[in-house]
Amino acid sequence: MSRREFLTSTGTMAAAYPAMLALGMLREAPAHAFSLAGNGKGKHIIILGAGLAGMAAAYELLKLGYQCTILEARERSGGRVWSIRKGTTHRETDLPLQTAQFDEGLYFNAGPSRIPHHHGLTLHYCRELQVPIQVYNNINEAAYFFAEGKGPLSNKKIRVREIHNDLRGYTAELLAKAIDQHKLDTGLTTEDTQKILEYLRAEGGLDIDKLYKASDRRGYLEGPGAGDLPGKIAPAHSLADIINSGLADPDFYNVSEYVYELQMTMFQAVGGNDQIAKAFEKKVGQCIQFGCEVTGIHNQLEGVKISYKDSKGAKELVGDYCICTIPTPVLSNVDHNFSSDVSRAIDYIPYMVTGKIGMQFKRRFWEEDEHIYGGITHTNNELTQIFYPSYDYLSKKGILLGYYNFNEKARQTGNLSHQQREKLAMDKGRLIHPQYDKEFESSFSVSWHKTPYSMGGWALYNNTTRQSHYKSLLQADKRVYFAGEHTTYLNAWMAGAFESARRTVTDLHARVSEQRISYPITTNI
Amino acid sequence: MSRREFLTSTGTMAAAYPAMLALGMLREAPAHAFSLAGNGKGKHIIILGAGLAGMAAAYELLKLGYQCTILEARERSGGRVWSIRKGTTHRETDLPLQTAQFDEGLYFNAGPSRIPHHHGLTLHYCRELQVPIQVYNNINEAAYFFAEGKGPLSNKKIRVREIHNDLRGYTAELLAKAIDQHKLDTGLTTEDTQKILEYLRAEGGLDIDKLYKASDRRGYLEGPGAGDLPGKIAPAHSLADIINSGLADPDFYNVSEYVYELQMTMFQAVGGNDQIAKAFEKKVGQCIQFGCEVTGIHNQLEGVKISYKDSKGAKELVGDYCICTIPTPVLSNVDHNFSSDVSRAIDYIPYMVTGKIGMQFKRRFWEEDEHIYGGITHTNNELTQIFYPSYDYLSKKGILLGYYNFNEKARQTGNLSHQQREKLAMDKGRLIHPQYDKEFESSFSVSWHKTPYSMGGWALYNNTTRQSHYKSLLQADKRVYFAGEHTTYLNAWMAGAFESARRTVTDLHARVSEQRISYPITTNI
Repeated sequence: MSRREFLTSTGTMAAAYPAMLALGMLREAPAHAFSLAGNGKGKHIIILGAGLAGMAAAYELLKLGYQCTILEARERSGGRVWSIRKGTTHRETDLPLQTAQFDEGLYFNAGPSRIPHHHGLTLHYCRELQVPIQVYNNINEAAYFFAEGKGPLSNKKIRVREIHNDLRGYTAELLAKAIDQHKLDTGLTTEDTQKILEYLRAEGGLDIDKLYKASDRRGYLEGPGAGDLPGKIAPAHSLADIINSGLADPDFYNVSEYVYELQMTMFQAVGGNDQIAKAFEKKVGQCIQFGCEVTGIHNQLEGVKISYKDSKGAKELVGDYCICTIPTPVLSNVDHNFSSDVSRAIDYIPYMVTGKIGMQFKRRFWEEDEHIYGGITHTNNELTQIFYPSYDYLSKKGILLGYYNFNEKARQTGNLSHQQREKLAMDKGRLIHPQYDKEFESSFSVSWHKTPYSMGGWALYNNTTRQSHYKSLLQADKRVYFAGEHTTYLNAWMAGAFESARRTVTDLHARVSEQRISYPITTNI
Repeated sequence: MSRREFLTSTGTMAAAYPAMLALGMLREAPAHAFSLAGNGKGKHIIILGAGLAGMAAAYELLKLGYQCTILEARERSGGRVWSIRKGTTHRETDLPLQTAQFDEGLYFNAGPSRIPHHHGLTLHYCRELQVPIQVYNNINEAAYFFAEGKGPLSNKKIRVREIHNDLRGYTAELLAKAIDQHKLDTGLTTEDTQKILEYLRAEGGLDIDKLYKASDRRGYLEGPGAGDLPGKIAPAHSLADIINSGLADPDFYNVSEYVYELQMTMFQAVGGNDQIAKAFEKKVGQCIQFGCEVTGIHNQLEGVKISYKDSKGAKELVGDYCICTIPTPVLSNVDHNFSSDVSRAIDYIPYMVTGKIGMQFKRRFWEEDEHIYGGITHTNNELTQIFYPSYDYLSKKGILLGYYNFNEKARQTGNLSHQQREKLAMDKGRLIHPQYDKEFESSFSVSWHKTPYSMGGWALYNNTTRQSHYKSLLQADKRVYFAGEHTTYLNAWMAGAFESARRTVTDLHARVSEQRISYPITTNI
């Protein structure tokens, strides 16, 4: 049994993994190897979109001997995987052209900026295409919670560590009290209940009497030093104050770091995540036709006909199969002869309304003055979040994300001009960082729902649409396959693009080569 | 009023900071500026030890015009700030010479390996001496808890995220139940109590009925993917199983990341923390005499006399003042005429018993097979902890810390030969990582309590000794000043060495220049 047969026969690597470990096959077959039998010689695949899904599909199809043509509406590759740097231009649906004035070497990721450690396929391609990565510091206890105009802690910069430890402490104290007073059936033995009390003391940082007191976990007013400086610990916030300033509200309190996809370790490509796209472009660039806006997709008796227009006018291209990675809000304006189910899915899958603004400052005051290195400040106002850069620590200048918001807040921000967005970011940002006025240099803002050829951040599904619209896009409509994060459970992530590309290539190649193989032949556990 | 007068008059930067921010002085006077009036021309300071404290003291004294001589027993600078790489040699008190066989470019920090983001002085010197830093990934939810031979979860590799979320979930459920059943006086209004319940649902990941169910927060059996792959979530561990395997025990359950000094963001110097020592050596190297073992320190009517021996024999050196950074377990074997209080402090301050082993593997299986990038696996056996490297992610080979233990476990490990320590690390390590046997190449172990010129990890104080022995070392004994982490509240940290150096230089210079200035003129909040 060859390694390929072994791999392709095992359904998922989860099942194969122990056996492979035993067989010592992991050196030759790293966890995300992708090797299929047969080849696609003589078959022409037209791929719509030179984003990660389209380029990764072409990359794997070329390995199998297929001929590929990638039609890309933009003059660049990468799609939503887009890093903004000096000279980057952008024109939203109803706004004038914007050009980034950032310094050489500085950038921000307008699209996906984080790579979870368990997105093995993204890291696999970074390794295979030799894209250097670095830690994206998503967790930073020194960042702030900021409740504008709400409650006793209104307009105060409160370190994340203060709220984390105060809430852990008070709730641990409450539960310990309930247990001590035998008011609660824990369903545990007396001995185990004692263990829980010990755990609560450690978890909550409770004193010997199981009461919560402020400790150094929540930081110092004056740090400990040499000689007579043990440090001065700040008093804890009262539980009522925290609650009444909304800092315990689920929509505000930072549990985001508990989300599987946001747990450390996280990474980013060194120099911008568009380096991942550029690495793929190096491999498949010869197949890409830029500036080609698709206007029609029509299955024919034999093959599929793509209508598009470029600078010279309207054109047509016929191929054996098509892989369409166009986001559905864009695709719904393209003429097609898809089935009614597919047509309905394309018209009704909602996309996230979201926007970011990158702001260059001539001094990294958040590091020099406030010891904030990476991480996220959370607010209850329009900004929602301020992200501090996870690269070039201790250097002179930096670009932070002045806001990264969603839904209604993002819609309102998106309705503003670029200048008005900058003013909003400055007006709200200086409440938290008074250094803004003295250090600000320039900004660049992106509203994804107003960005041509994207028209949204990522596909949003609920349990109902997963069973209806989503499923409709999973089978090929005759000779047209659909790929992209919207055809996965990894929405908004680069890994979604990659997994969908592999799934589509697997299905298409199985059909062409008449083999019984199915995605995934690997897994990303 | 000049900036210097302003600075030196303000006691601590904590007080001065808002004023300085208002005065827009932070550009000219970064948070850790250190500028003193007057100069020390004609004064000769003998510094004992070329560790960070000794070299930082010399660095600042030279700026002030002092003449400095640093006597260092070893043939290298840095003291406990020591990175082990190809060719590094080490001889413990009762063991033969050990030489590191690691590949070029690979290293591990035998001493301090982490820099907290709030240790502003350490980062200040990294910036001033242009030592590049990178994130030290201290938090990794993908690392393991491993309970050897204990309870229902015995000898299972359990991801940190599983235990974190199960314990948060079960305790949140218990407290929610107590509150719902009105069995608990929360001391809060009904409305605020409802907010707490909302918080508990978010914090614990409880369902609509406020019951804890396994969620994706604790990871997947099979990750989500494209098409029909929503992912398979593993069932939660039972609370009783977690307790009975000791995974909720304070001495095991990982609350270490709650400790102020271990909260993200953390850093390390690129290429090893000894790069910080080497950067100082570049500045003060001309003052350092290597291979000079101090045998006597004697205050005289005028000046201080240092007796030492080098390769050529016994020697003496007389200076105006001495700054002694020798760790007390070493100093207690040096002849001196200190006061009885100082003498007692030197003889009775205990130091941490601790050891590490660096192990080179020819494949980063923890990354390739298990998606572990940096972070710490916690065990209940002799290993205590396994640290995964926070540099060269995705590269071929790597060095992990096979154990980093303390106290009795470290004493037992320290009693073994280097070969026996390697065998212990292999025997216990393969229980967690079966790949050890196939991939292991070489190891290098250090027991600090058996390392000449250190004889311990760091000074250990309790409330009593802080009032007695500690205080005795804070004033100069006539013309001899004491510096090093043991003269600070930053024990075990490089910042302790730096803060103590600044404190000592401040005191000594105040005396020489007859100025009223006191440490800190800056702060490390």
